[in-house]
Amino acid sequence: MNKLTDSIKQAIIDSGLKDGMTVSFHHHLRNGDYVLNMVMDAIAELGIKDLTLNASSLFNTHRPLKEHIRRGVVTTILTDYMAAELGAFISEGNMANPVQFRTHGGRPCDIENGKTPIDVAFIAAPSSDCMGNCTGKQGRSACGSLGYAMPDAKNARFTVVVTDELRPYPLTGWSIPETDVDEVVVVDSIGDPAGIVSGTTKITRDPVGLLMAQTAVDVIKASGLLKEGFSFQTGAGGASLAAAKYLKDVMLKEKIRGSFGLGGITGYMVDMLNEGCFDSLMDVQCFDLKAVESIRNDPRHCEISATHYASPEAKSAVVDSLDVVILGATEIDVDFNVNVHTDSDGRIMGGSGGHSDTAAGAKLAMIIAPLTRARLPIVTDRVNCISTPGSTIDVMVTQKGVAVNPRDRELALRLKEAGIKVMDIEELKAVAEKLSGAPAKPRLGEKIVADIIYRDGTVIDHIRQVEA
Amino acid sequence: MNKLTDSIKQAIIDSGLKDGMTVSFHHHLRNGDYVLNMVMDAIAELGIKDLTLNASSLFNTHRPLKEHIRRGVVTTILTDYMAAELGAFISEGNMANPVQFRTHGGRPCDIENGKTPIDVAFIAAPSSDCMGNCTGKQGRSACGSLGYAMPDAKNARFTVVVTDELRPYPLTGWSIPETDVDEVVVVDSIGDPAGIVSGTTKITRDPVGLLMAQTAVDVIKASGLLKEGFSFQTGAGGASLAAAKYLKDVMLKEKIRGSFGLGGITGYMVDMLNEGCFDSLMDVQCFDLKAVESIRNDPRHCEISATHYASPEAKSAVVDSLDVVILGATEIDVDFNVNVHTDSDGRIMGGSGGHSDTAAGAKLAMIIAPLTRARLPIVTDRVNCISTPGSTIDVMVTQKGVAVNPRDRELALRLKEAGIKVMDIEELKAVAEKLSGAPAKPRLGEKIVADIIYRDGTVIDHIRQVEA
Repeated sequence: MNKLTDSIKQAIIDSGLKDGMTVSFHHHLRNGDYVLNMVMDAIAELGIKDLTLNASSLFNTHRPLKEHIRRGVVTTILTDYMAAELGAFISEGNMANPVQFRTHGGRPCDIENGKTPIDVAFIAAPSSDCMGNCTGKQGRSACGSLGYAMPDAKNARFTVVVTDELRPYPLTGWSIPETDVDEVVVVDSIGDPAGIVSGTTKITRDPVGLLMAQTAVDVIKASGLLKEGFSFQTGAGGASLAAAKYLKDVMLKEKIRGSFGLGGITGYMVDMLNEGCFDSLMDVQCFDLKAVESIRNDPRHCEISATHYASPEAKSAVVDSLDVVILGATEIDVDFNVNVHTDSDGRIMGGSGGHSDTAAGAKLAMIIAPLTRARLPIVTDRVNCISTPGSTIDVMVTQKGVAVNPRDRELALRLKEAGIKVMDIEELKAVAEKLSGAPAKPRLGEKIVADIIYRDGTVIDHIRQVEA
Repeated sequence: MNKLTDSIKQAIIDSGLKDGMTVSFHHHLRNGDYVLNMVMDAIAELGIKDLTLNASSLFNTHRPLKEHIRRGVVTTILTDYMAAELGAFISEGNMANPVQFRTHGGRPCDIENGKTPIDVAFIAAPSSDCMGNCTGKQGRSACGSLGYAMPDAKNARFTVVVTDELRPYPLTGWSIPETDVDEVVVVDSIGDPAGIVSGTTKITRDPVGLLMAQTAVDVIKASGLLKEGFSFQTGAGGASLAAAKYLKDVMLKEKIRGSFGLGGITGYMVDMLNEGCFDSLMDVQCFDLKAVESIRNDPRHCEISATHYASPEAKSAVVDSLDVVILGATEIDVDFNVNVHTDSDGRIMGGSGGHSDTAAGAKLAMIIAPLTRARLPIVTDRVNCISTPGSTIDVMVTQKGVAVNPRDRELALRLKEAGIKVMDIEELKAVAEKLSGAPAKPRLGEKIVADIIYRDGTVIDHIRQVEA
């Protein structure tokens, strides 16, 4: 007895997928993923339509979805992040139903509490045995953690593992156990290794980015949080990585032993683990090959589910114990609301991911961004889209100064005492506008193309159609 | 923010436990467990009554339950195994409601499907952090796997971790994640190490046991299953361990590399792993210190949940892929039905545990037992209690010969060809009765003191009251 099935098409037939149902995908293969497109093509060939697609993130490689949307195969999209190509398509009003954007914590929460049930989950697994015990840590398409896939596999009515590397039963070190898997399909390739993880993520060489990174570390030091047991998350952007590098230097010099690094994990966080800055890494997604290698071999580098990472309805999640997170922004307004969903033209080109979750959980949530980008100011009166509410953001670091949320009076005092240039966010806005002029608001239509669903389930903003 | 609570009593109050609710416990601390008694005493002191107690197994150390039953604190018991002291108490009719015996696979199944919901689960954890990430692998009361506790923690409305070793957050290598835990209580000691695991489990020196063990291995060889990829489970009884030892010798001599060993794991199975007989061990419970040491340090030695072990409603469980299991019996009848619940007087002194689950899953389910015990025959016309249906048993090995279930004609032929003394089970019964006389049926009352609930949910037998 085993669960091997000849083809993706056969697995879809076996799953009982019908018009109007929901299929789900995870994004650990990132822009190298072949599985979503293979499955959606097979679904289209079978003539199934009116589906809800629930994907933890969507990348440019998923552009064939445009055709599936045009033909009515997919009529609703739920996701936490959407890259620019599909984002522009949605923003131009090509879909009848608004996209539902959730957060990386809100998504597993709503899968588990039944608000967004999944009929058939497709798990892209770099290795699996014939019963469905599968992992991202092994295999030629290894991507490391499968954290976002775990709630899908656990809660879907029918779960299909798609792999390109079949291992003898039982595969050990499973990310997802056979108890959650109905069928296993072996394909030639689940993804393009070059797109799955980058060889190395690069630190910025831009002097503005390096200056902001240095300031970010100064803020962390001054905050009083950088001490024994310190915990930290940062993104994979160049300035964020530079901040991690500077932070490591400080921790080593001052012999500060932190507890854990969290998040999407890069090689820079692995270096911090290996050099003794942290006792462990809590990893929901690996960003580069060094992180994949580490999670495969080092038991201190732990795979966590999206639920364990950030679910607001879990009995607790790791974000609840986080000290500091460094986050990016495409816009921030004078109320500290942050936009990471749309560009300056109002087009979708991102999403919250774990932005709102970590901002809500961390003791110090820091935005790091230059005052202007492409001759447009980053600090504005009102963001075009509220991705993360300003009430959860503590500090904004720019190359010209640092703004502290007025609710954090003690933090502002500490930063001033440490000699950091603290400015009112209105002042930062004025400096930005002086550099690049006041931004023209994008011209938007009436039609709502996406809803922003905060981690607590409330719709906190909408995205409107742009003119094509 | 953390989940630490001052006392077990406070945790019970916080849990909202009320009259008529259900509390649950797991048995990895075996006869050394202090937690169940501490919690039940606190519940009794709080005046809460009419509770359902759902415990994966109950040992003699849990004898204070008798008083809680007498006083109406506990009015229903659900368990998979009950040792002789509490068993005698139940058999003598001291409880109004029948005990519900399930199997190690049926129990998590009914917890997950909602048939036996848990209000408050108490997890005895040898180490935990302040948020409830906890494990059995570390700590001075280390017991290894916490496999039976996982479904309880996951599905209970409220989960309390009770530990005697608090570790820094985040504890890595958790058995149960913080997402499932409401509160953590630190106590002086969760158990007596001497009772939790035995130092070493001993192979029998009894010549009858050794003879049966040798025959068991001859049967496995003759069955055709002992080849590349072979998988195996055996119990911790003396003859079963001797069979593991002999089997290891054969596998090493014949260079047979198996896939996995399953079950409650002993040091003998660890030896088989380390000497290359298996690629991995799948461990729902550790029986001795060597197994605890191994699961702590060797990533090939995997902790599995009770669901992953044996749930009949999981999409698959490891028992479904098992080749051979060696099981014991207190009685077996001419239809191959096995009793492991009651002694020859009809008194409860055991339970199915994983007996029925592995018998149903394994390609070859073998009973190994001497023809007589304490001058009573083991093979009878009809067992006093059907624990495992004869339809799932393939072969019975005794010191005088081997009986094959008539449905397994090919197996009988193979054994005969291999020179094994195959006898009709009626013949074995006759030999047993010749040795010790026909057994007197125990004198039983009308009152039903326990129901035997098979893994598929059907009540396959009842246990009646004995005369005290």
